[in-house]
Amino acid sequence: MPGESLGVPASPLPLLAPGAEPTDVGGEMHRLIRDLYPICRSITGNGVRETLRRVAEIIPLETHEVPTGTRVFDWVVPKEWNIADAYVKDANGHRVIDFAESNLHVLNYSIPVQAKMSLAELLPHLYSLPEHPEWIPYKTSYYEERWGFCLSQRQLAGLKEGTYEVHIDAALTAGSLTYAECFIPGESPDEVLISCHVCHPSLCNDNLSGIALCTYLASRLQACARRYSYRFLFIPGTIGAITWLALNRDAASRVKHGLVVANVGDEGRMHYKKSRRGNAEIDRAVAHVLGHSGAPYEILEFSPYGYDERQFCSPGFDLPVGSLTRTPYGRYPEYHTSADDLQLVKPERLEDSLATYSKVVHLLENNKRFVNQNPHCEPQLGRRGIYRQMGGKMESKQTELAMLWVLNLSDGRHSLLDIAERAGIRFELILEAAILLSEHKLLAQC
Amino acid sequence: MPGESLGVPASPLPLLAPGAEPTDVGGEMHRLIRDLYPICRSITGNGVRETLRRVAEIIPLETHEVPTGTRVFDWVVPKEWNIADAYVKDANGHRVIDFAESNLHVLNYSIPVQAKMSLAELLPHLYSLPEHPEWIPYKTSYYEERWGFCLSQRQLAGLKEGTYEVHIDAALTAGSLTYAECFIPGESPDEVLISCHVCHPSLCNDNLSGIALCTYLASRLQACARRYSYRFLFIPGTIGAITWLALNRDAASRVKHGLVVANVGDEGRMHYKKSRRGNAEIDRAVAHVLGHSGAPYEILEFSPYGYDERQFCSPGFDLPVGSLTRTPYGRYPEYHTSADDLQLVKPERLEDSLATYSKVVHLLENNKRFVNQNPHCEPQLGRRGIYRQMGGKMESKQTELAMLWVLNLSDGRHSLLDIAERAGIRFELILEAAILLSEHKLLAQC
Amino acid sequence: MPGESLGVPASPLPLLAPGAEPTDVGGEMHRLIRDLYPICRSITGNGVRETLRRVAEIIPLETHEVPTGTRVFDWVVPKEWNIADAYVKDANGHRVIDFAESNLHVLNYSIPVQAKMSLAELLPHLYSLPEHPEWIPYKTSYYEERWGFCLSQRQLAGLKEGTYEVHIDAALTAGSLTYAECFIPGESPDEVLISCHVCHPSLCNDNLSGIALCTYLASRLQACARRYSYRFLFIPGTIGAITWLALNRDAASRVKHGLVVANVGDEGRMHYKKSRRGNAEIDRAVAHVLGHSGAPYEILEFSPYGYDERQFCSPGFDLPVGSLTRTPYGRYPEYHTSADDLQLVKPERLEDSLATYSKVVHLLENNKRFVNQNPHCEPQLGRRGIYRQMGGKMESKQTELAMLWVLNLSDGRHSLLDIAERAGIRFELILEAAILLSEHKLLAQC
Repeated sequence: MPGESLGVPASPLPLLAPGAEPTDVGGEMHRLIRDLYPICRSITGNGVRETLRRVAEIIPLETHEVPTGTRVFDWVVPKEWNIADAYVKDANGHRVIDFAESNLHVLNYSIPVQAKMSLAELLPHLYSLPEHPEWIPYKTSYYEERWGFCLSQRQLAGLKEGTYEVHIDAALTAGSLTYAECFIPGESPDEVLISCHVCHPSLCNDNLSGIALCTYLASRLQACARRYSYRFLFIPGTIGAITWLALNRDAASRVKHGLVVANVGDEGRMHYKKSRRGNAEIDRAVAHVLGHSGAPYEILEFSPYGYDERQFCSPGFDLPVGSLTRTPYGRYPEYHTSADDLQLVKPERLEDSLATYSKVVHLLENNKRFVNQNPHCEPQLGRRGIYRQMGGKMESKQTELAMLWVLNLSDGRHSLLDIAERAGIRFELILEAAILLSEHKLLAQC
Repeated sequence: MPGESLGVPASPLPLLAPGAEPTDVGGEMHRLIRDLYPICRSITGNGVRETLRRVAEIIPLETHEVPTGTRVFDWVVPKEWNIADAYVKDANGHRVIDFAESNLHVLNYSIPVQAKMSLAELLPHLYSLPEHPEWIPYKTSYYEERWGFCLSQRQLAGLKEGTYEVHIDAALTAGSLTYAECFIPGESPDEVLISCHVCHPSLCNDNLSGIALCTYLASRLQACARRYSYRFLFIPGTIGAITWLALNRDAASRVKHGLVVANVGDEGRMHYKKSRRGNAEIDRAVAHVLGHSGAPYEILEFSPYGYDERQFCSPGFDLPVGSLTRTPYGRYPEYHTSADDLQLVKPERLEDSLATYSKVVHLLENNKRFVNQNPHCEPQLGRRGIYRQMGGKMESKQTELAMLWVLNLSDGRHSLLDIAERAGIRFELILEAAILLSEHKLLAQC
Repeated sequence: MPGESLGVPASPLPLLAPGAEPTDVGGEMHRLIRDLYPICRSITGNGVRETLRRVAEIIPLETHEVPTGTRVFDWVVPKEWNIADAYVKDANGHRVIDFAESNLHVLNYSIPVQAKMSLAELLPHLYSLPEHPEWIPYKTSYYEERWGFCLSQRQLAGLKEGTYEVHIDAALTAGSLTYAECFIPGESPDEVLISCHVCHPSLCNDNLSGIALCTYLASRLQACARRYSYRFLFIPGTIGAITWLALNRDAASRVKHGLVVANVGDEGRMHYKKSRRGNAEIDRAVAHVLGHSGAPYEILEFSPYGYDERQFCSPGFDLPVGSLTRTPYGRYPEYHTSADDLQLVKPERLEDSLATYSKVVHLLENNKRFVNQNPHCEPQLGRRGIYRQMGGKMESKQTELAMLWVLNLSDGRHSLLDIAERAGIRFELILEAAILLSEHKLLAQC
């Protein structure tokens, strides 16, 4: 829908209708996830580069390389990690644990190793999940040099006494940390920051779903006129957010609203974790969209534990950034295991998440203040035929009430979201009323 | 009770005891309603004039005529409407619908008509209430020139095919809009605005009850010394409020508290709809009076839909005006039908409503700030014999507590209502304590 | 534990562990109560002096004598009251009421009397409790000169017609009002005021328990380094508080937090009555300690009725002083009767109350503001080995969260109590995290 505007128009333009793309966007999101699934990502290395290269086939990405050793606040960009192959062979030369079958089998960021050892020597390097005997856990060791393998409890139980050959063909070398931005300029230099982590290997909900959502939301936004500028970050978790903040303090200072995207493909209800500020416009916008969604949802207070909102909401930045997910990290059993796979994420849930994000963006874009041009008593709406304009609509009574609320509260102090909240009417209807009244010169934008 | 004071006296004067008139004020209110019931009122015309003439027999009224065509903000004063007779006759010359039986039978503000027509031609001009087959609905068409008749569903069902003679002897002519004020000056130019609509024909609860309440509350207030000035408005709904506000901006700017009066005679509980401000003194005063009434009640948030508070609370005025009713408009089945009649309104409910309004006025009059003249530690009340003065009262423990609260919070920042709210003690007792303490020079008014 | 510090140390010092004294402090408190129990106290006189003399054997006390007739705000220090003996003898010369058996038998502040009279003449001077026939009530008449005896309903019922000899060997003479202070200086001149009333005769919960708590809390505080200065008041109720405030306005102006101590030995749950301010630091500190105590408790709003918080919270002072008790005055049946005896107060409840006061003091001492020295993003805690330092603790996950909260909210605006409240984590854990982070130079005190 090129040229469409998200903002309140001077003349009546069609609004962004979230989720109204002609294409099967949920299916496309799922295809992107499937495409990215086999790549072995980590907080650095070629897996991230390959991931970003494929995303860049859909949206324009600017990719950045930050050299190993770069100081970023209290942290240092680590060595780059790459891996070619890894396995454990039994005495018969059978690969009993094989990186080629699942990149989760290797402790992420393992140092290289080539050794023979007894089972007793091997065991301290093996990680499994006794409570889910078929699943491989996902483990990392970024800042302590170790090696290890992850495997299912069933596999572990099958290991017999004997000599094993352990091989990890990995490299930890001076290189760089890779991240990418998709910047979509708007009328205003004020920015909306939307961030996903790209450091997890073959895990779908956490966080290929977030990568897919950012990709297709950016794609959708490119097609619309925009009030705000949008900056999508594709960054490794924690160190990527810290690196971006350290190198982009000007951009950070322009962030007016932000969301951290993760776990948006599972069957669970939407969850919104508020920003540190707790009552920022983004917090109220998401709460309003979820509250009027008709679906169950949950609002969580901010806590300094979770995804990269930890960094964006650190006291030196205190950005108004929350996190909008389906089931939050750690609350679903498949989290950080091989069961977070292509079956766990559903095209229709991905599409529903994208629609929710679109509604939030739509609200932010249109949440303006107006001034009633006829503030003394009500204007005579009947004379202008406004009631008739609403006549054909099912919810004309609600629309009339929406117009009266907009007229009553448009004193320059109340935003449309303020009005929607006080009226208990969904934002779209309040916006529709504001547009109609603006067309009749009864409202003017502040 | 001439000369009595509503305010806190320098020396102990008897207080207004609301509802303590010697006469049967509920009965008088009901008699006034009965007297006004047959008159065919509308937003303009002789019905309003006749109504005001009769009210003026009880309280002094200043009547205003605003010519047709006068611009009032976004509106224009309409043509004046008067009606002499109206009927529909069947082929036998029988009046099957007759204005003489009920003025509700004519669509209020109908244009004149004299015609013969088939039932099929007549039907689009007829209004009934299928869900209440015995009741005549009340319908208007002020700003679109139409004609019509209202009738019971039973009557409608009895109409047979045939030719009907339709006759409405009405006139829509250049004239004026009529409204009246009863202004009762007080010590201060600050005003309390109390407003009722006078535009409804033979409907009792909505709003002959409001007219009766305003009349007798004004009468009662005339007999008392007053801190505030009081302005009672007898105005047609919507256009009357807009006209008054347009022509009386100085008076409007002096309004410190206000109430819109309607539906005060039915059996329902009291309802208070807050002003746009939501926490104005009038909002808190009414909530306090209702909260301590011992009777069930309901507090409603402001909304820009309802009676003339819509205009008083428009953003250009934002006056602290709420609406205190029994059952609100639209929430009782008889609303805007012929069943809103003399049986629906009860003398004892009218009297109870008047008593409630009187208590609110009493609270506003006496809601002052005091300063404890002995702010360091408690004064020695026992030495002054104050405890003994309270000794004879049943609730002396409560009165002692009231005195301690008044002393503790009278730091110049807290009004007596603030104190009553925090103490959870009814205002009258707090006031009584303040008077006693003032007499003993322990308090001084701010 | 001499030399231990209550405050956040520059280097890691052991914290005050409230209730961790080696001695049986509850038993010691109960022994002090038993020692003071027989003394006949009143608002003046030798009973108070003797009481203070014994307390001064445990903690240093400065005793003050304020002469009869001294004006203190609206009050005047009364005559001093002392009593040697009192009885009522029947015709046979038997002491049917005997002060030597219980000092409650005499109306406190009785004028001297020596007379013979009939039972009918005696009866108006006798006070009993029909609802508790075995208990002697406690009655006073400080400001009206009267005489009387209190006795059990059973005793009263046994009095036969006849002539009685009434003897009260009391003296009401120019003397002085006695009170004492235990002042324990701290780093800051800002004071914490802890006050108990010493005017009640043989009554244990009200208020020998309060005297014992103040004594042992002062004793404990002497042994610690202190940020605040502490002033313990041992004063007669009402007139003592008024006298102290009148004569110590400088000290009053330095009070930053305060508690009135009474009824701290019974079996009931803790109750905290808030200061007039309602949200003072002391109010929040006590609420936090009680909320994390694991025991049931109750928070009461301020009211200007109760103990000496009435005076401290009078509007001319408005000190942040609440009252922390077990069962409040008047809410237990033994209140102000001979049943408020040595059995009603339990060593373990006294000790628990002392522990609660100690935790409140500990919180106040340590409730400081810090500034995150690394406010941009999280610091790399792992590199510093901080996680390992917590590794041995059962609640290391909670401690990690506590550290993240402290880092996130230490922007100079949030105190540790603010952080504890928002995080929902108990203050001790937040404090422990702050100390650990301070040691690693990640926090600095404001």
